[in-house]
Amino acid sequence: MITSPLGFRAGAVAAGIKPGRLDLALLVADAPCAAAGVFTSNRAQAAPVLVSREHLAGGRARAVVVNAGCANAATGPRGLADAREMAAAAAAAVSCEAREVVVASTGVIGVLLPMEKVRAGIAEAAAALSVEGGAAAARAIMTTDTRPKEVRVDVPLGHATAVVGGMAKGAGMIAPDMATLLAFFTTDARVPADLLQRALREAVGDTLNRITVDGETSTNDCAVALASGAREGAEVAEGGTFNAFRRGLAEAAVRLAEMLLRDGEGVTRVAEVHVEGARTAADADRIARVVAESPLVKTALHGGDPNWGRILAAVGRAGVALDPGRISIWIGDVWVCEDGAARDYAEAEAARAMTGDPVRFRIRLGEGDAHGCVWTSDLSRGYVDINAHYRS
Amino acid sequence: MITSPLGFRAGAVAAGIKPGRLDLALLVADAPCAAAGVFTSNRAQAAPVLVSREHLAGGRARAVVVNAGCANAATGPRGLADAREMAAAAAAAVSCEAREVVVASTGVIGVLLPMEKVRAGIAEAAAALSVEGGAAAARAIMTTDTRPKEVRVDVPLGHATAVVGGMAKGAGMIAPDMATLLAFFTTDARVPADLLQRALREAVGDTLNRITVDGETSTNDCAVALASGAREGAEVAEGGTFNAFRRGLAEAAVRLAEMLLRDGEGVTRVAEVHVEGARTAADADRIARVVAESPLVKTALHGGDPNWGRILAAVGRAGVALDPGRISIWIGDVWVCEDGAARDYAEAEAARAMTGDPVRFRIRLGEGDAHGCVWTSDLSRGYVDINAHYRS
Repeated sequence: MITSPLGFRAGAVAAGIKPGRLDLALLVADAPCAAAGVFTSNRAQAAPVLVSREHLAGGRARAVVVNAGCANAATGPRGLADAREMAAAAAAAVSCEAREVVVASTGVIGVLLPMEKVRAGIAEAAAALSVEGGAAAARAIMTTDTRPKEVRVDVPLGHATAVVGGMAKGAGMIAPDMATLLAFFTTDARVPADLLQRALREAVGDTLNRITVDGETSTNDCAVALASGAREGAEVAEGGTFNAFRRGLAEAAVRLAEMLLRDGEGVTRVAEVHVEGARTAADADRIARVVAESPLVKTALHGGDPNWGRILAAVGRAGVALDPGRISIWIGDVWVCEDGAARDYAEAEAARAMTGDPVRFRIRLGEGDAHGCVWTSDLSRGYVDINAHYRS
Repeated sequence: MITSPLGFRAGAVAAGIKPGRLDLALLVADAPCAAAGVFTSNRAQAAPVLVSREHLAGGRARAVVVNAGCANAATGPRGLADAREMAAAAAAAVSCEAREVVVASTGVIGVLLPMEKVRAGIAEAAAALSVEGGAAAARAIMTTDTRPKEVRVDVPLGHATAVVGGMAKGAGMIAPDMATLLAFFTTDARVPADLLQRALREAVGDTLNRITVDGETSTNDCAVALASGAREGAEVAEGGTFNAFRRGLAEAAVRLAEMLLRDGEGVTRVAEVHVEGARTAADADRIARVVAESPLVKTALHGGDPNWGRILAAVGRAGVALDPGRISIWIGDVWVCEDGAARDYAEAEAARAMTGDPVRFRIRLGEGDAHGCVWTSDLSRGYVDINAHYRS
């Protein structure tokens, strides 16, 4: 669906970087696009992140090249040169300039890219470009994902209807405070680069940055949006059309976020952690995240155990000044904790609330009016199994 | 061994709080002791923590009463009244004042203490007090611990040799930034309360506060020390005798810390995370803790996978300003990463270093001269299994 908007083609190949499967994708616009990106907040940034950030500074791009199987992170000057060469190879294959190419890599850290395979793969992918290539591209960017993530949202803009397409990969190393993963959006609306950047930042902040699987933030995460402007009459400008467009982009992002969370490593159950009554939104977010990342809360979620004491304990260690004697907690509709102490609730009802999809944890602090929300997943044997031997 | 120092007796009983096992311990000094305590940094503090903090404010205590099976946390005013009654019942049983009694509880959060059982158990434990009662007390305070933790250290003080005894419980909800667990120390040295408090704070800071199993900090954690002064000639004062005493107390604490870590929930392997070349000690500690608590590092540790890229990624997301291009990483003696990039090391040697006990991760930042260290454990299926159904 990344090629659903007019003006885009994609191709994907098995380049042999991650043996036996599609591992290299190329997304190309028919003409230069307005482009925007948000990148990992990790201080150890992979070479492709450094290069793409530089290339997107001008707000224009023509192509995106992505490989799985090797993150090209912690690879030093050689890795940086490889990322630049990857952009140059894609540029040559589709006849644009290297600085019009966005580069992304995902996979193992600390290993150099097999550049011969990358070069050959790019040439092959360029030959395979088509408007039907989106599904293959979404498969090629997967790492430990068990299924591809694609989305299409139609956005009415005056008399025209623009299309937003998206694809993403996630599974592990997923946490807030960054772009969180690889996510790519296309649209055939005509969007000025500054508005596209603003819409992307907002969409990611409200969606992809609010999911956490394991609290990890990777060296490679990025979200990129390209606007081809190929849809006749679908113009986006400050005001009503921008509002419509950003709602559409946010809708695409929230749907990808949900797919990413549900396909997180070892995930069997998901939960929404809603914090209200905080002094500031930052306090609410901080508390929601500490609860969402608590191994004890996540294992209780896995076991379906309405163990709200662990939620209270996580709130208490979040580093936010508050009076625990004012805290209320709900699991689903069951009010389990009031004024920081157990209520007289029915355990069976609380246990039933733990079977919700998502499970809803609501925490009221009684300190102010601000609120925040984070989505999380359970911690299972599956997560351990996947990550204890990821490289082998 | 909590009763190895002169002047202490202990008793433990199966009070029926945690059915089928010892679950209530009483430790009593023959005469009032100098006493000190450090308590959880969690803002949600359990009733016994509030009461014990108050009782220890004067630096004196006569007895400690501890129950397993119920944390008496998130229990509101009723829980506070119960903790006070527990102290009063112990005081009555051993003929001292309630404010001379330290109270501690561990177990499930949000459930009221079964006070009838607690009262009967205290009376029974008081009747069972003996100088041989230490081992039973160490068993009675266990929760998901698989074995009791006891220690004895002899401390030469001039012509006398004082004894430091200790016992602790841990297993889960173990993380730095607090007393971390329940730990009790006794000594027959004569130590002024202010020096005892200082020695305890230092000992806990360097040992119990440097272990992490799951990054959780509980509502109930505390470490308490009682000094009976019953050993003839074992006087501790500022200077040489204080230095000897605090070394002895720290030795007892470090040995308990190691026992706690190795008996952490689901632990099969332990590691030391040493960070050097940081700008400040706080930076070094922060980074060591983020690495030590990273689910991806902990699962790699479990699998014996020398996946140093995950260490680098954790350093990068620790929120400390640094240049990732200066980072070096060693696993054991194998230098795997230099200037933020992979070195040409032998994978088999790195894999062998992951079988060390403990595994040693050394991270050099190249930003300054400060260093820090945290001990951690692996994340296994066992942790998930234990915590997914802890209450059932």
